[in-house]
Amino acid sequence: MSKDKKKKKKPAPVAAPLISPLAPAGGFPELPVIAGVRFAAVEAGVRYKGRLDVMLAEVAEGASVAGVFTRSATRSAPVLRCEENLAAIAREGAGAGGYAILVNSGNSNAFTGGVGRAAVDATVNATADLLGIPANHVFVASTGVIGEPLPAERITAKLGELRDALDPGAAGRAARAIMTTDTFAKGATALVDLDGTDVRISGFAKGSGMIAPDMATMLVFIFTDAAIEQELLSRMVASINEETFNCITVDGDTSTSDSLIVAATGRAPMEVIASAEDPRAALFRDALEGVMLDLAHQVVRDGEGATKFVEIAVTGAASDRAARKVGLAIANSPLVKTALAGEDPNWGRVVMAVGKSGEQADRDRLSIRFGDILVAENGWVSPSYTEAAGAAYMKQAELVIGVDLGIGAGAATVWTCDLTHRYIEINADYRS
Amino acid sequence: MSKDKKKKKKPAPVAAPLISPLAPAGGFPELPVIAGVRFAAVEAGVRYKGRLDVMLAEVAEGASVAGVFTRSATRSAPVLRCEENLAAIAREGAGAGGYAILVNSGNSNAFTGGVGRAAVDATVNATADLLGIPANHVFVASTGVIGEPLPAERITAKLGELRDALDPGAAGRAARAIMTTDTFAKGATALVDLDGTDVRISGFAKGSGMIAPDMATMLVFIFTDAAIEQELLSRMVASINEETFNCITVDGDTSTSDSLIVAATGRAPMEVIASAEDPRAALFRDALEGVMLDLAHQVVRDGEGATKFVEIAVTGAASDRAARKVGLAIANSPLVKTALAGEDPNWGRVVMAVGKSGEQADRDRLSIRFGDILVAENGWVSPSYTEAAGAAYMKQAELVIGVDLGIGAGAATVWTCDLTHRYIEINADYRS
Repeated sequence: MSKDKKKKKKPAPVAAPLISPLAPAGGFPELPVIAGVRFAAVEAGVRYKGRLDVMLAEVAEGASVAGVFTRSATRSAPVLRCEENLAAIAREGAGAGGYAILVNSGNSNAFTGGVGRAAVDATVNATADLLGIPANHVFVASTGVIGEPLPAERITAKLGELRDALDPGAAGRAARAIMTTDTFAKGATALVDLDGTDVRISGFAKGSGMIAPDMATMLVFIFTDAAIEQELLSRMVASINEETFNCITVDGDTSTSDSLIVAATGRAPMEVIASAEDPRAALFRDALEGVMLDLAHQVVRDGEGATKFVEIAVTGAASDRAARKVGLAIANSPLVKTALAGEDPNWGRVVMAVGKSGEQADRDRLSIRFGDILVAENGWVSPSYTEAAGAAYMKQAELVIGVDLGIGAGAATVWTCDLTHRYIEINADYRS
Repeated sequence: MSKDKKKKKKPAPVAAPLISPLAPAGGFPELPVIAGVRFAAVEAGVRYKGRLDVMLAEVAEGASVAGVFTRSATRSAPVLRCEENLAAIAREGAGAGGYAILVNSGNSNAFTGGVGRAAVDATVNATADLLGIPANHVFVASTGVIGEPLPAERITAKLGELRDALDPGAAGRAARAIMTTDTFAKGATALVDLDGTDVRISGFAKGSGMIAPDMATMLVFIFTDAAIEQELLSRMVASINEETFNCITVDGDTSTSDSLIVAATGRAPMEVIASAEDPRAALFRDALEGVMLDLAHQVVRDGEGATKFVEIAVTGAASDRAARKVGLAIANSPLVKTALAGEDPNWGRVVMAVGKSGEQADRDRLSIRFGDILVAENGWVSPSYTEAAGAAYMKQAELVIGVDLGIGAGAATVWTCDLTHRYIEINADYRS
């Protein structure tokens, strides 16, 4: 989150696309009701009038809640509060009472000093009082401008209205309320059969610019009726996060506010999954990973100015970690990203990015593919490669760049988008 | 170097500036003659007709030669050859015979496999034969397209003409011959009094895109008539490089071909400087650092699409190394760079970049300045700061962003430019 400065005056020199050309064709999915979860969203005027900008999710008592947050050294007051809540729950147990997730767009409450902490206290305490739940069961997230005081009173003034509007079917409204520069709302769902019990997973996300691992600029909220033990869920979410949200990048910039929260209500008729060895754990993990990957891809598809969705698959590296670093060096290279924008099959820039990654590489063992086209191998362009074939491939909206380092068995896949004039327009052409 | 794919067809949608608006007002400086060094440049048609594209520098016998090269894992055949030459000289001593530096633009001879090595052998051997010097005294550098075979025969065909044209006063022509997307030739000079002896230092450079530490995309050649021992010169050059060329970034991308070569002919009437404790060593080092920093700044000023020259001064870090990493995180952030392009005093993005650097930072001890304007301190915007003052400051072409982390005594300064539409045009709008 943390789309920063106010955009005002001066129309964009090129008309903004209403929706990213890479948005999923089907639009926002029908999200199933998750037993034990209700949503509401209102117009609170946090920064702008006439749009949904605050959402409340209520999660019933007994749920397991897991979270992963930005590792930024300048993370926001809401992030610090969520981390404190989870630490308290891990230390002391959850205790009685349901949970709430309160999110606003328009202001990230980041780099706001003591005023920011006071705003978090105000919204958390008011929510806890209203719903009759412990204060450390109230999770908060904020996305928007950095460095301006959050008008907490505009949020607390709407809490009664939010509570009265709580509805198990309102996830779509909640997803819209957390958008900032997003051009479409992002949702994903899965149904998984756990030993005869149907379990549902349903989540939504926001994120568009300031997207990079640790984590993407992003808020993600996922709900499931699965019954799964808190600590197991936490480890599972952290592990999946490494291969999903931590493998996407739009611009290499990292938000001060990234938050991923997963709540499992346990309302499905099943025994609690308490161990990773339980065969249902792997099934559930796969389903959850599917939802997280889907949402992560949607964030890249809505990358600021994106016209290409690009998968970078690195194999043959010294380790998986090395493969991921090489993949991100390619994905974050401005010269690679501008070549993609220009539909230029400029494989020399891929070679350059591999070289600069700092990881072990051998020029003469490196091979590069665009989709199924072998572009380079053995330290030089492939004899079978033609610029015409490369140029034709680059015209597609969805691209796969394969890089085999020919050194070891390490592999990783990362996803990114191109760097276009529209990115500059969104981030430079307006003035604060 | 290594400006990659061919640019052709399709005129740029916005007229290219003939010369970067940040070019030094005085133009290319008058470079003094360095005793023992001669230059020549010719049109060899390596890639384009009608422009100087090959330069030869001849350095007299007895010189000390030092070099620093890209650490890219995919570095070019010429870079590998220069490293081998210097290793041989370090191992076996220089032996008899002068030196040559042969450089072409238009083709980087990078990622060209065995063909690339053969092209290097051909040009090196022909130059050695022609000048009657050892092959491992011939240094080569190539800048331009990656992955295409270097037409070595076009270069060797011109060697006789180059030799016949050698002239102590032709450094300016040589500087023009090595340009690629550079909009101006880059030269710098210094005169230093070493214990009563005037010593001259004179250098030139090329570099514009694909600029990042380790090293900038760049070729730099510096000559001096100082008498200084080879190994001392090498250590001095490597050390200064860390604070000059390794502290600039245009786009965070690193070339496969970066090369810095410094040759000291020893023709000034002085005793050889053989120890770092010699008081003349510090004086010479300062003068050399001045030339290297000047050239490094000129590379940033000619950054592709640059309209702002930006110094980022980080203080109060846990270490100098940490300070440099924080500085580069700010300098390479697309969101910071687009804000600079938009003249947007968006200090929240500076906070974000500090946070993502991975170095120790404390939000509540961080302070940020734009020039002399205190923008933020104690975890929040400064009470004295106004957006109007920040916006007025950002209109300047030369900017200083000061960041104090408030943690320790570590400090570093890095230099960068903004990220503009013109960068996208140069790198995306043309097709190969």
